[in-house]
Amino acid sequence: MNILDIIRNYSLKDISIAVLASHSALQILKGARDENLRTLLIVEKDRLELYEEFSNLVDKFFIVEKFRDITKIVDLLRKENAILIPHGSSVEYVGSETFLNMPIPVFGNRKLMIWESSQKLKMKLLREAGIKVPKEYSIEDEIDRPVIVKLPGAKGGKYFFITNSREEIIRRIENYVKSGIVNNIEDVLIQEYVIGVPMYFHYFYSPMFNRVEILGIDIRYETNIDGLKRFPLIDKVSVEPTFIVVGNIPVVIREKMLQIVLKYGKMFVEKSRELIPPGAIGPFCLESIVVDDNNVVVFEFSGRIVAGTNIYIGYGSPYGWLYWNEPMYMGRRICREIKIACERGIRNLELILT
Amino acid sequence: MNILDIIRNYSLKDISIAVLASHSALQILKGARDENLRTLLIVEKDRLELYEEFSNLVDKFFIVEKFRDITKIVDLLRKENAILIPHGSSVEYVGSETFLNMPIPVFGNRKLMIWESSQKLKMKLLREAGIKVPKEYSIEDEIDRPVIVKLPGAKGGKYFFITNSREEIIRRIENYVKSGIVNNIEDVLIQEYVIGVPMYFHYFYSPMFNRVEILGIDIRYETNIDGLKRFPLIDKVSVEPTFIVVGNIPVVIREKMLQIVLKYGKMFVEKSRELIPPGAIGPFCLESIVVDDNNVVVFEFSGRIVAGTNIYIGYGSPYGWLYWNEPMYMGRRICREIKIACERGIRNLELILT
Amino acid sequence: MNILDIIRNYSLKDISIAVLASHSALQILKGARDENLRTLLIVEKDRLELYEEFSNLVDKFFIVEKFRDITKIVDLLRKENAILIPHGSSVEYVGSETFLNMPIPVFGNRKLMIWESSQKLKMKLLREAGIKVPKEYSIEDEIDRPVIVKLPGAKGGKYFFITNSREEIIRRIENYVKSGIVNNIEDVLIQEYVIGVPMYFHYFYSPMFNRVEILGIDIRYETNIDGLKRFPLIDKVSVEPTFIVVGNIPVVIREKMLQIVLKYGKMFVEKSRELIPPGAIGPFCLESIVVDDNNVVVFEFSGRIVAGTNIYIGYGSPYGWLYWNEPMYMGRRICREIKIACERGIRNLELILT
Repeated sequence: MNILDIIRNYSLKDISIAVLASHSALQILKGARDENLRTLLIVEKDRLELYEEFSNLVDKFFIVEKFRDITKIVDLLRKENAILIPHGSSVEYVGSETFLNMPIPVFGNRKLMIWESSQKLKMKLLREAGIKVPKEYSIEDEIDRPVIVKLPGAKGGKYFFITNSREEIIRRIENYVKSGIVNNIEDVLIQEYVIGVPMYFHYFYSPMFNRVEILGIDIRYETNIDGLKRFPLIDKVSVEPTFIVVGNIPVVIREKMLQIVLKYGKMFVEKSRELIPPGAIGPFCLESIVVDDNNVVVFEFSGRIVAGTNIYIGYGSPYGWLYWNEPMYMGRRICREIKIACERGIRNLELILT
Repeated sequence: MNILDIIRNYSLKDISIAVLASHSALQILKGARDENLRTLLIVEKDRLELYEEFSNLVDKFFIVEKFRDITKIVDLLRKENAILIPHGSSVEYVGSETFLNMPIPVFGNRKLMIWESSQKLKMKLLREAGIKVPKEYSIEDEIDRPVIVKLPGAKGGKYFFITNSREEIIRRIENYVKSGIVNNIEDVLIQEYVIGVPMYFHYFYSPMFNRVEILGIDIRYETNIDGLKRFPLIDKVSVEPTFIVVGNIPVVIREKMLQIVLKYGKMFVEKSRELIPPGAIGPFCLESIVVDDNNVVVFEFSGRIVAGTNIYIGYGSPYGWLYWNEPMYMGRRICREIKIACERGIRNLELILT
Repeated sequence: MNILDIIRNYSLKDISIAVLASHSALQILKGARDENLRTLLIVEKDRLELYEEFSNLVDKFFIVEKFRDITKIVDLLRKENAILIPHGSSVEYVGSETFLNMPIPVFGNRKLMIWESSQKLKMKLLREAGIKVPKEYSIEDEIDRPVIVKLPGAKGGKYFFITNSREEIIRRIENYVKSGIVNNIEDVLIQEYVIGVPMYFHYFYSPMFNRVEILGIDIRYETNIDGLKRFPLIDKVSVEPTFIVVGNIPVVIREKMLQIVLKYGKMFVEKSRELIPPGAIGPFCLESIVVDDNNVVVFEFSGRIVAGTNIYIGYGSPYGWLYWNEPMYMGRRICREIKIACERGIRNLELILT
């Protein structure tokens, strides 16, 4: 597979946007519509009912048994001059190996998305970028403060737990190993639980404009932890807290803090170029805890569009308006970048695809 | 009264939208403006000061002593070819009997709104639709988990309480009976308090397009429970929690969960046709707890527009944009449906009014 | 300095909007763009990197060492027919004395902004306006309920604390005095901590239309208190709560409560005319606790634009749409008022500047 060869055979005037029917697919389809790009939706049979409700946004449906069957339709996709927009479900459903080698142009740096799926590599990139991160513990360490224990690939916060007891960590991880939830104890991340408020910063690195844009911010809405806080019997009834992300709420940040947020975004892009060339392209997210007004700790990143951007579909985010003076949200911003690259010619398109 | 006869005398090119000055009236008026329909506002004297600030949205004010005096002006309203858009205050202020028999066309199924005002009928519809609901207890039952106790017609959550003690339930309900807050102990609903996070799904069933649209989601903001959770002395100072809805916050849901949300909406419409013909028409809401990413429990419904839709006035909800590619919010969606029905002719208008 | 003389020399067809690069500057610049007014940004060197990202919104940068150096460039600003839009950082960074006497037209009543910086004067205005406020305590009083202790000029809630112990108050204030955080013990405000939910109401008093508009509402997002509420080990690990505002979340209020919100706004404007002539002009905010559906307590006000309005940049607030039928947010609303005043002539412009 040579992606550059594929692109060179594309008709730049007739590009289409392909996406897996999940995560932020509707937003991306809408963004493509706004930018007058054709849309292709790869959809698993049992999700078709939902997406057919939005057939106004789709030019062609490609129905597959499982998302990993995308490999069987790459020829068809290429005939449509398709660019795949990856999102949070892409690596998960397609599988790392397959995702990395699919012979179809992908918007962004697919290697970055693979890094993201390792809890430990992900923290390494942040740390080496010079971004403030929580302290990390190994299972041998004494636990001297609250920590959050994160399992490898545990999408959406499933099985995460918070504790300040080394005994509890050992006991629970052993149970997870027994029940097959964890294969390799080495992949478990034991991370300082930073006290502050969560904020998730949505960035877009634009090779076309050579700049990092802050396109929005959200707060995740997690079951059951965000319900427990308003449960009056919490002291009388014992309930195990869980951290499963089921929604997102919009938020803006104090303007003076945009400085540190922007700085972090730039540091992330720069270091990613060194460690995972060609570095971050397009959307990424720094999942953060704001400790005080000039102290932001990043406990995770996403190397692609995050679902929190779904809150700004159509009407655009406050920050999107500042840069663009029109309704701008991540799905549209991605398609705008592709459109501009196509207009500028093949050399530019090569800069944003891998 | 025969509503069909009334409609047949209407001039379909000169329909007007009538609404009681409360709840989501401003949104509905704005929606009518967006759809170029005339607007009539029925307003109680002591609310006039507020609504006069928005006289730009109102073609005619009808000032009444009490909302139930709407019966005295139905002739005037009919002369304006008026369609009344009911909302959360309509049944409450007008009274069930009066509301059910007003000789004026009402958008939606008025019988559904009557069902809604009974805690028990409301749960029956949900249960029979096959939607997951919380366990229900009678006052004789042993209480084996936290429950929320809801009084009949207690608008906005007033007097609700959460407990896991049967003694407390009996004691408090007896007090409510004594003080006249509760008339009939049989009307009190004792419902399992489901642990998870609340989300309120705004639906629109469109007879014109024969589809259920998910137009938005909100989280209710309740005093004092949402303040207590950030009150540092909560363990030292005893404060009785209350659940009075005073505001709404926007939220989006994980895209994969739109499947179950849509399915619930369709099941609701279908069963409502059987139990309360002609079934749900236009806006309704499923008040839900998201327990995990494929487990949603519905603890209540509203058979008309909910106030949570007010968050999307003007700029439109993320989901509204997906369906409509323009700013779409519930008040406008209602008026759009009416406008389309009028354009298609009298037979279509009959499908959306009762 | 005579502001009226300055204005009389301005070319009303070529007004520009000047703002300090902080707080809500981006919003105000964007608002000026929307209203076709030129923009001038006064920026400290170490903030330049951020604001250069938004150079699309700025016609001229004025780079200063410190914001208080604005006094050195007033001549240049006046040559641009500049009107300074003050915000939450203006008095703080420029200094009260300097701010009050700067020979440059300021939108709004600068004396009101000075009042705002005194915790005690601020409560006096609210109280005398007839607005419900929390009980106030002196350090000699017995503390019979939870109170919040606020330091003078403590921007963003720094060093605030909540307690119900007089001993704790005395001990902590003594420490603050020792460490130089507090100079005068008399300036400390000991205020009843009202139980309910916070809501921050954004108003605009328009001399051009002689009306008070409710343009939006937000909830502040404070570290670490809003994180502590979802921290499962809160009972096991002792963490000092802090109240530093780092973000804002959008919210709408129950429609019937708009009555009391509007009434409070009008009462505020009226009393401000008497105590601080010419009274409130343009944006102000009543920081409130909603106790129940007709009980709102105001614990603070801001006499200028608040940062919570940043959530509505570009797409406009729900209430802004109701009044204006176009995307309207505070930064734009300010510039709209100026534009209308300029069109109507010098006498009108004099009504909105001091």
